[in-house]
Amino acid sequence: MISNGMKVYLDNGSTTMVDPRVTSKVIRYVNDRYGNPSSLHFKGQEAKKALEKSREVIANSVHALNEEIFFTSGGTEGNNILLKGVAFANRNKGNHIITTKVEHKCVLESCKWLERQGFRVTYLEVDKEGFVDLKKLEAAITDKTILVSIIHGNNEIGTINDIGNIGSLCRSRGIYFHSDACQSYTKVRIDVKAMNVDLLTINSHKIHGSKGVGAVYVRDGVMIDAWQHGGSQESGMRPGTENIPAIVGFAEAVKLAMSSIHVSSMNRLRDRLIEGIVERVPHAKLNGPLGEKRLCGNVHFSFRFIEGEAINGLLDDYGVCGSTGSACSEMDLEPSYVLKALGLSHEMMNGSLRLTLSRFTTDEEIDYVLDVLPKVVRRLRDISPFKEVSHVLGRDS
Amino acid sequence: MISNGMKVYLDNGSTTMVDPRVTSKVIRYVNDRYGNPSSLHFKGQEAKKALEKSREVIANSVHALNEEIFFTSGGTEGNNILLKGVAFANRNKGNHIITTKVEHKCVLESCKWLERQGFRVTYLEVDKEGFVDLKKLEAAITDKTILVSIIHGNNEIGTINDIGNIGSLCRSRGIYFHSDACQSYTKVRIDVKAMNVDLLTINSHKIHGSKGVGAVYVRDGVMIDAWQHGGSQESGMRPGTENIPAIVGFAEAVKLAMSSIHVSSMNRLRDRLIEGIVERVPHAKLNGPLGEKRLCGNVHFSFRFIEGEAINGLLDDYGVCGSTGSACSEMDLEPSYVLKALGLSHEMMNGSLRLTLSRFTTDEEIDYVLDVLPKVVRRLRDISPFKEVSHVLGRDS
Repeated sequence: MISNGMKVYLDNGSTTMVDPRVTSKVIRYVNDRYGNPSSLHFKGQEAKKALEKSREVIANSVHALNEEIFFTSGGTEGNNILLKGVAFANRNKGNHIITTKVEHKCVLESCKWLERQGFRVTYLEVDKEGFVDLKKLEAAITDKTILVSIIHGNNEIGTINDIGNIGSLCRSRGIYFHSDACQSYTKVRIDVKAMNVDLLTINSHKIHGSKGVGAVYVRDGVMIDAWQHGGSQESGMRPGTENIPAIVGFAEAVKLAMSSIHVSSMNRLRDRLIEGIVERVPHAKLNGPLGEKRLCGNVHFSFRFIEGEAINGLLDDYGVCGSTGSACSEMDLEPSYVLKALGLSHEMMNGSLRLTLSRFTTDEEIDYVLDVLPKVVRRLRDISPFKEVSHVLGRDS
Repeated sequence: MISNGMKVYLDNGSTTMVDPRVTSKVIRYVNDRYGNPSSLHFKGQEAKKALEKSREVIANSVHALNEEIFFTSGGTEGNNILLKGVAFANRNKGNHIITTKVEHKCVLESCKWLERQGFRVTYLEVDKEGFVDLKKLEAAITDKTILVSIIHGNNEIGTINDIGNIGSLCRSRGIYFHSDACQSYTKVRIDVKAMNVDLLTINSHKIHGSKGVGAVYVRDGVMIDAWQHGGSQESGMRPGTENIPAIVGFAEAVKLAMSSIHVSSMNRLRDRLIEGIVERVPHAKLNGPLGEKRLCGNVHFSFRFIEGEAINGLLDDYGVCGSTGSACSEMDLEPSYVLKALGLSHEMMNGSLRLTLSRFTTDEEIDYVLDVLPKVVRRLRDISPFKEVSHVLGRDS
């Protein structure tokens, strides 16, 4: 440990600290209000009331109806049950699904599984900043297309797709539109009605809420099969005893997060960090767009001549938690498929660092990272086998 | 409210109070150790360590290997992913599944869904106490049978099946054996190796642990498809960010529950309650077996001439929480399919009451219920349209 004791958690894209106000609310439900909402007695009914109040908070946050919100165990489950549930329910209408090459792994893997079940999936290319091209999407639609699934805010590089435009296109063609909004939720305004979104996935642990809980929005009228079978919980759409303390904690987190003040303050710190890195670290390339179309907490760079794992390892010694990309892919040895889709060279893909801020991130923490990161990169380049090359080359990608 | 202020929670078959020692452990992880175990930095690695330590506790509790345990969001998910995952992975070997008519709803509904996907399911009859007949099971096996799924401890009537005998039979015929042990776990000894169990479902919220978490055991070597797709969490068997606080709370609950003292004390109170009801309430019929082959916390009666909902409603006024049957089915208007399978008359099915004890249940609480319940039944019978009949008839079923 080289750290001076300073701990800076900049891996909020992986998971976030639970807001203490969420925790204190959750504890009340864990300690006393432990009933099963399906039970008819007073203990069950107080749980049921908490469940429905929480559902209302979530519904309001995305402009959905209460009965269009179903609680899940998290984002991965949400994406799985929406994609597979819609695919199976609409098989007789068509077998074609359109998504992109830069979705979260759980969308891509669900699509691959669906391909093994006889569905055909088109994985759209994205541009150099990670955006989906509406014309390419339109060109991919066939009369067999039943579902389009496009991520709202990219979990690795922070690109925010215009889901309103995509939604309009899909609606006009009578195709269901799903968006994975796990990273953008509460950070970018979502109005499922105005944006013509039919299906949406959100979760709690990325917004300082309880872990192990999320929700899906399914527009009233969408043909979808339940993917988990059992009792009549969540109107049969997602059976299993509801995790009331976590659901209450999710709703509380949403209430606390639905403030644009957080977003503008995170944007400011994000841009300070981006500008500081560009200024102080040579051969650093920002991945993803700048400005409003980038998630407020997302900073993602490629550094030439060095490995992302090494950068993160040294940062860790300094007490700074970052990542090379998505936590869900971090165990894999392969370079990020998201960076690959942007057209990055192998070298730039390998030298990647994601720093993701939260509303608790401070100026002092950004200062610390801007002090430490250039040292880390310099040290690694000094021992890099590409050292000589790095002195010769003057260009950045 | 007629209650004198006494509150007696006897619906532990639906869900249980979280043990305060579990809560205090969970809070530590919620407040401070909030990392994502897939992250490589110190915050991720401390979460990873907690995850693996918890896995070891669960594995030891059923005599499994650590790598044979996979965390889920609960019992319903566990049963779903095991049944469907095994069915899809073994399609080329056969399409026949055997289960019983008295499984938890999530097993039955998963089976019905599998039937719609081209599988054939045999639903075995049970005897008057709810036991599976080994000979009937053997007779149902065909060369297309790939899976047998039989509940360990029945959630409504408490019948404990001999899963060791069933396991031996299945192993000798080369058929996978799954058991839903959500109600029996930590109350009845389970040794998956000695009992030849290939797949097991357990959960946390029935044993005073955190809600929203459970686990499945999958014997090393069993052919099974992952049913949820995404990252490499839980070795790819169950992707999605692990709910570390809940998992830690689950393991803590298991440690606290693995004591035979609780079981014998619960057996004693259960039998006091059963004997007291038989003594004090005329026309009361116990459903399920007596003694060792009944779950230690389960009491289930049918009362002639009155409705279970009415009994529970009045008990609720007295501060006593019971249920008519499974919480997962309580919203349904249909009488219990479990009681139907026992051959009960429509009247006896409708007049059912389940009281499920926990290790926190006291003699004083049992006294209170034995005081209140006869009054409740008498009052309801006084206003029952079957009143005259009840005075004439002297028999019990």
